[in-house]
Amino acid sequence: MKQISISETVMFYDTDCGGVVSNIAYLRFVERARSALFGELGMDVESMNESQLFPAVIRTEIDYLFPARLGNVIEVTATLVGVQKVRVTCEFSLVIAAGAGDEKQIAKAKQIVALVQMPSGKPRRTPEEWGSYIEE
Amino acid sequence: MKQISISETVMFYDTDCGGVVSNIAYLRFVERARSALFGELGMDVESMNESQLFPAVIRTEIDYLFPARLGNVIEVTATLVGVQKVRVTCEFSLVIAAGAGDEKQIAKAKQIVALVQMPSGKPRRTPEEWGSYIEE
Amino acid sequence: MKQISISETVMFYDTDCGGVVSNIAYLRFVERARSALFGELGMDVESMNESQLFPAVIRTEIDYLFPARLGNVIEVTATLVGVQKVRVTCEFSLVIAAGAGDEKQIAKAKQIVALVQMPSGKPRRTPEEWGSYIEE
Amino acid sequence: MKQISISETVMFYDTDCGGVVSNIAYLRFVERARSALFGELGMDVESMNESQLFPAVIRTEIDYLFPARLGNVIEVTATLVGVQKVRVTCEFSLVIAAGAGDEKQIAKAKQIVALVQMPSGKPRRTPEEWGSYIEE
Repeated sequence: MKQISISETVMFYDTDCGGVVSNIAYLRFVERARSALFGELGMDVESMNESQLFPAVIRTEIDYLFPARLGNVIEVTATLVGVQKVRVTCEFSLVIAAGAGDEKQIAKAKQIVALVQMPSGKPRRTPEEWGSYIEE
Repeated sequence: MKQISISETVMFYDTDCGGVVSNIAYLRFVERARSALFGELGMDVESMNESQLFPAVIRTEIDYLFPARLGNVIEVTATLVGVQKVRVTCEFSLVIAAGAGDEKQIAKAKQIVALVQMPSGKPRRTPEEWGSYIEE
Repeated sequence: MKQISISETVMFYDTDCGGVVSNIAYLRFVERARSALFGELGMDVESMNESQLFPAVIRTEIDYLFPARLGNVIEVTATLVGVQKVRVTCEFSLVIAAGAGDEKQIAKAKQIVALVQMPSGKPRRTPEEWGSYIEE
Repeated sequence: MKQISISETVMFYDTDCGGVVSNIAYLRFVERARSALFGELGMDVESMNESQLFPAVIRTEIDYLFPARLGNVIEVTATLVGVQKVRVTCEFSLVIAAGAGDEKQIAKAKQIVALVQMPSGKPRRTPEEWGSYIEE
C-alpha cells in the first residue's frame, strides 16, 4: 500500500473571519499531501518541473467534519486507493491532536487525478507498477 | 427558483505552472457565486459581518471538466437545489465563452452548507421561506 | 495619464481569524488593478496568455492603513507613475466607502514591474509610447 | 539576537502560469517565518488564538530577486531588527540551494508589525524584554 502523512500548522492565511480554517485552505493541505504521495510513487514535484508531466485533479470530494483553528497541527494522510489506465484515486484523512494522545478527524477527502503532459494537455498512461500498490 | 450568475476574469494568482487555473482557485469562484446566492436569500456578506451568522460549507464536490486559462471570463451560476432543517444544497455550473455565442462548461460543483452562529459554533435553523424556493 | 479603477467585494477567503482582511489578500486586489492598468496599456491578460510576455513584479511596497472587513467594497485605483527602459512603476490606492459619500483610504501600494518573455525569462524593453503617459 | 529559519517546498498552488512562484505566494512564506519568529518571542500562533492578541502587519516591502520554481526548497530566515513602543520591524531573507552547498537569494523582505488586541482593534505595547533582543 502506498500511504504517506504530512503535518501542517494552521497559519493566519488559512483561516477566515468565522474564526476557523477556510474551506478553501483545506485543499492546500490536501495538495501538499498528494504531492508527497506522488513523490512516493516516483513523481516528485521537482522532477515534474522538468518533465512537465503533471497530475491534474479531475474531481475532488471533501467533507468538513470539525472546525480547525489557528495554530492547530493538522496531520494529513494520503493513500493511493485506486489505479486505472489513465487515472488514479487518492483518499485523504485530516486529523488534529485532541489531547491525551487522541486524534480528532476534522475532514476527509477523495481526489481523482489524471496524468497530463503539458503543454499539449494530452493524457498519459498510469505507470504499470502503480497497480501493484493497490490491495486486492 | 433561486439562481444567480456572476462573472470572473482569471488572474495570474488563479493559475499554476501547469499553465491552467489551479484546482483550488475554482473554489474561490464558487465561493463568490455562493455569497451572491446567499445575498439573494437575504443574507449578504456585509450583514453576516454584523450578525456573525455564517454559512459553513460542510461538503464540496467538484468536477473539473476542461482547463481554464489566464484571461478567460468564467461565468458561475449558483442554484439553490435543496433546503433541509439545518442545511441547504447549492449547485454551481462554471462556463466560459467558446466563440460564436457558444459556451463551454469547465466545471460543475455541489456544496452542502449549514448556518452556524459564531463564535459559539451552534447550528441555526434554515429560514422557513427558503423551502418555497425549491421546485417540486 | 494612465489610471484605472476596479471594485472588489471582500469575500470570506480574503479575511483571516483576526476578523479583518488578510495582509496577503490585498495583493490580489492590487494584482487585479494592475492587470486592468496593463490592459489599458494594450497588454490585457488574455493576450499575455498567447504572447507569453508577462509583467513580473520585482518590488512591492504596501502600507496597511485601516482594516477592511467582510462585505466591504474596495475601490482600487492603479496609476502608471514611472516608465524606464526595462521597468515601470505603478501606484495603487485602496479605499472603501465611509458613509455620506466619503471615502476612507485603507491601503496604498507601489509596485515595480519588468516585462519578461517566458519561458526564456529574458527582460523586454518597455514600449516606447508608454513614456508619453507620464506627466512631466 | 532573535532569528529563526523555516523551510518550505514550492507547491503547485504557489506558482502561476508564468511558470514561477507567484509574487503573492512569497507573502505566505514570509508569514510562516514571521509566525515562527513570534513563537520564539513567546507569542506562538496557538496562544494567539486564545489571547486574541494578534501581530498586525502595517507595512510590507519585498524585493523579488530571482524566480523560484515548483519543487524548490525555500529557506526563509526571519530576524527581529527593530523594537519600538507599539511596533516591531522584522527582516526576511529567502534563499534556495544552488548546488555545491551554495545558496541563491531569491527575495528579501521587511515588515513592520503592530500588536493589536482583537476584537477591539486597540494597539498594545510591545513587551519590554523584546528590546533586549536588538543589537546595539
